[in-house]
Amino acid sequence: MILINGVEADHIAVNDRGFQYGDGLFETIEVLDGQPIFLEQHLSRLGADCLRLKIPNPDIKLLTDEIANVCKPAQKAVLKIIITRGTGGRGYRQPETIQLTRVISLHPHPEYPQTHVEQGINARFCTTRLGLNPALAGIKHLNRLEQIMARAEWDDPTIQEGIMLDINNQVIEGTMSNLFYVKDNSMYTASLHFAGVSGVMRGIIKQLSTKHNLTLIEHDFKKDELLNADEVFVCNSIIGIWPVKQIENANFAVGKLTKQLQAYLMQMKRQVQ
Amino acid sequence: MILINGVEADHIAVNDRGFQYGDGLFETIEVLDGQPIFLEQHLSRLGADCLRLKIPNPDIKLLTDEIANVCKPAQKAVLKIIITRGTGGRGYRQPETIQLTRVISLHPHPEYPQTHVEQGINARFCTTRLGLNPALAGIKHLNRLEQIMARAEWDDPTIQEGIMLDINNQVIEGTMSNLFYVKDNSMYTASLHFAGVSGVMRGIIKQLSTKHNLTLIEHDFKKDELLNADEVFVCNSIIGIWPVKQIENANFAVGKLTKQLQAYLMQMKRQVQ
Repeated sequence: MILINGVEADHIAVNDRGFQYGDGLFETIEVLDGQPIFLEQHLSRLGADCLRLKIPNPDIKLLTDEIANVCKPAQKAVLKIIITRGTGGRGYRQPETIQLTRVISLHPHPEYPQTHVEQGINARFCTTRLGLNPALAGIKHLNRLEQIMARAEWDDPTIQEGIMLDINNQVIEGTMSNLFYVKDNSMYTASLHFAGVSGVMRGIIKQLSTKHNLTLIEHDFKKDELLNADEVFVCNSIIGIWPVKQIENANFAVGKLTKQLQAYLMQMKRQVQ
Repeated sequence: MILINGVEADHIAVNDRGFQYGDGLFETIEVLDGQPIFLEQHLSRLGADCLRLKIPNPDIKLLTDEIANVCKPAQKAVLKIIITRGTGGRGYRQPETIQLTRVISLHPHPEYPQTHVEQGINARFCTTRLGLNPALAGIKHLNRLEQIMARAEWDDPTIQEGIMLDINNQVIEGTMSNLFYVKDNSMYTASLHFAGVSGVMRGIIKQLSTKHNLTLIEHDFKKDELLNADEVFVCNSIIGIWPVKQIENANFAVGKLTKQLQAYLMQMKRQVQ
């Protein structure tokens, strides 16, 4: 089911700025038993990103009602929300009156095998580099050519994620996930000041770390540091937390801290459901 | 008139990757007396950009026929071509079989006053910085949030263009144009290795410079160099060449070289028409 501005449809105006320029944002949310998980965090991130792009805030009451209607019948699914700056004329200048476009759609849950969660996944380093762009860093916007080029680099179904570096060779994130590593009982993740998407699941892991007194440090790091880690994991709203058991020739155990976080996350998801 | 995959329409599939991720390219072409000007150069740039983004090359014969049909009745207009990687499922990974989406649309010519060409325009420096992204630099792709944020910075109708610097404070281009300056009878423009769009009109100016033995140097330069120039001009396929008479507090004469290039361009346009 797809709702475009509240109406069931599957086509949008060709002069929508989302299509013309990628002028918008999106959220990808897990749906379990009719409930969008961590909806509050997703809507709060969406609001914060709108502010940064100077897109007017969407009507949250309206959005929440529509989301509830779309999700209600779904047992296990993925909800995608797209907000764009609406339609407009040719040219980058935005129209004087902005009527946001909102697209709410339900998609099949990818249903990854449980082994990804328990035994970990294989990852590779992408050759596509993330650019440096502080004005857009962190935002889940619709300008996603870097991720597309990175994801197009491999076809091997035994590799679940590609790790992206920026043009200065700092490790930033996965093509569809944020990346963490553990060294000597401290957790580390990239600071995302110049590149990367500040994922909702990344935010939840930060929250869980504070709550459970785990050390989490946001800093810049390179390949070597990552490959010398005790544990590595990736996360996003759909996969939750996946341990990384192998990056090219380096192997990692599914470690204690990763398992602990998975357990805390499971607990938190049960509470919000 | 809008042709979407050869059919008159004004809506595209919501799962088009152009809408979902800005996964595509565009061209903006001037139409005079039913003729798309410099079409060959535009299609050649489109092909080169497809190659860089690993988007299959569009069927040029089909595209050219459709363009001819759309342009035929137009006296003076703007033709926009959008090519995307077609529709696809959720996620960055591209579908195994790619069916390009092509959108060909005709728009009113902006009809800028002739004084812009003869007496020059006013410009300002944008605070929005272009990121550094060699993988995408030069490409006229659909990821245009930087230009949108820059163009949203000013409303003053007496300012015609905003000049964009990159995060290292190198001067790159205008929000909708490429930028050149003249110093001691040599022309300079940014090299676009890390940011910017390699415009078709920029390419034509390079061609004209070679043909008429004018010195044109592509290099990195900062604000100071630009503000100390003898002449400054901006260009794109619709405006042609506009002298810049003022950038904030600095004034520039409409110089000899700028006028010469305008004359060469006029001559060349007459030949291709």
